[in-house]
Amino acid sequence: MAVVEISVTPLGTGTPSVSAYVADCLKIVRESGLAYQLTPMGTILEGEIDAIFNLVRRMHESPFAAGAVRVSTLIKIDDRRDRAEHSMAGKVASVAKRL
Amino acid sequence: MAVVEISVTPLGTGTPSVSAYVADCLKIVRESGLAYQLTPMGTILEGEIDAIFNLVRRMHESPFAAGAVRVSTLIKIDDRRDRAEHSMAGKVASVAKRL
Amino acid sequence: MAVVEISVTPLGTGTPSVSAYVADCLKIVRESGLAYQLTPMGTILEGEIDAIFNLVRRMHESPFAAGAVRVSTLIKIDDRRDRAEHSMAGKVASVAKRL
Amino acid sequence: MAVVEISVTPLGTGTPSVSAYVADCLKIVRESGLAYQLTPMGTILEGEIDAIFNLVRRMHESPFAAGAVRVSTLIKIDDRRDRAEHSMAGKVASVAKRL
Repeated sequence: MAVVEISVTPLGTGTPSVSAYVADCLKIVRESGLAYQLTPMGTILEGEIDAIFNLVRRMHESPFAAGAVRVSTLIKIDDRRDRAEHSMAGKVASVAKRL
Repeated sequence: MAVVEISVTPLGTGTPSVSAYVADCLKIVRESGLAYQLTPMGTILEGEIDAIFNLVRRMHESPFAAGAVRVSTLIKIDDRRDRAEHSMAGKVASVAKRL
Repeated sequence: MAVVEISVTPLGTGTPSVSAYVADCLKIVRESGLAYQLTPMGTILEGEIDAIFNLVRRMHESPFAAGAVRVSTLIKIDDRRDRAEHSMAGKVASVAKRL
Repeated sequence: MAVVEISVTPLGTGTPSVSAYVADCLKIVRESGLAYQLTPMGTILEGEIDAIFNLVRRMHESPFAAGAVRVSTLIKIDDRRDRAEHSMAGKVASVAKRL
């Protein structure tokens, strides 16, 4: 299981607002059935790494379908395979219990 | 006001776990008084850009104080100045209302 | 055509050096035939976006094959479709001619 | 010594081209006297970590001075302190000798 953050940003749209594009991406995430968390800086996905790669490929395409001509996408993968559980909730809990 | 995500990762520590280092960073955030949100992939900060730069500089130093010899830090800044409010909550709300 | 930067970093290996892992990744890049540039901070790829996604998927897997149990991969995509040419050399030249 | 990559991107400018903004940033780098390398995906800086923080703070401000209202800046720091030399050239050489 991997935990992956992605942000998809159209450039040159004429408006500094990107929320409509982000909402389009999030609809694709919801339809995928993968676990996710929307944050102020991106979308975090949790699941099998190949399923996530398939999803981020489609998310990256989304702004082009909405008319953008240039898209900047940032993907950060945290893939840990030395234990059974590696999840969004587990990662936050590991830190929280040390505070 | 800027919204900034940061993740601080020590390399070569001998263990794949980084939660102790992340907890140390988060203590520095808490003491700063800046608004923040811990996510599964990093810490998101909200505030005046210079205050945030000061804080991320100190967060980056934290793992060295704990014995790390190499630190990889990723900082993503979203700085918007065309309207009065630019916040963590506002960014998520802008997307949510479009879903 | 897209220009994509990727860095693949194993965590918890016991040594702060990552060059052996980076070299393994670069061998995969070379065998792919895609245009690339090695920089001090990562590898930049140029080509068709689906070919690049296939390649980064394989690069991300490389440290696990070499024994790593946790891998942090950062991918930044710059995909521009409003003109015929979008290349590593063209991007640098666009900036250089303004200096 | 640290090696740091930075990319500074204005949003909502009305044009997908960002080379004029990147050139402005690069002029600030040149005047700083710090060692740097322009790549197709950003600018890589080498030097003392506090000098670099000062410089990236100024680079981030540059597009606002040119009229942008929203700026997305990505900073990736590689700070290694277990040996005398940690440089752009040294990092590439470490990988190259393994190929």
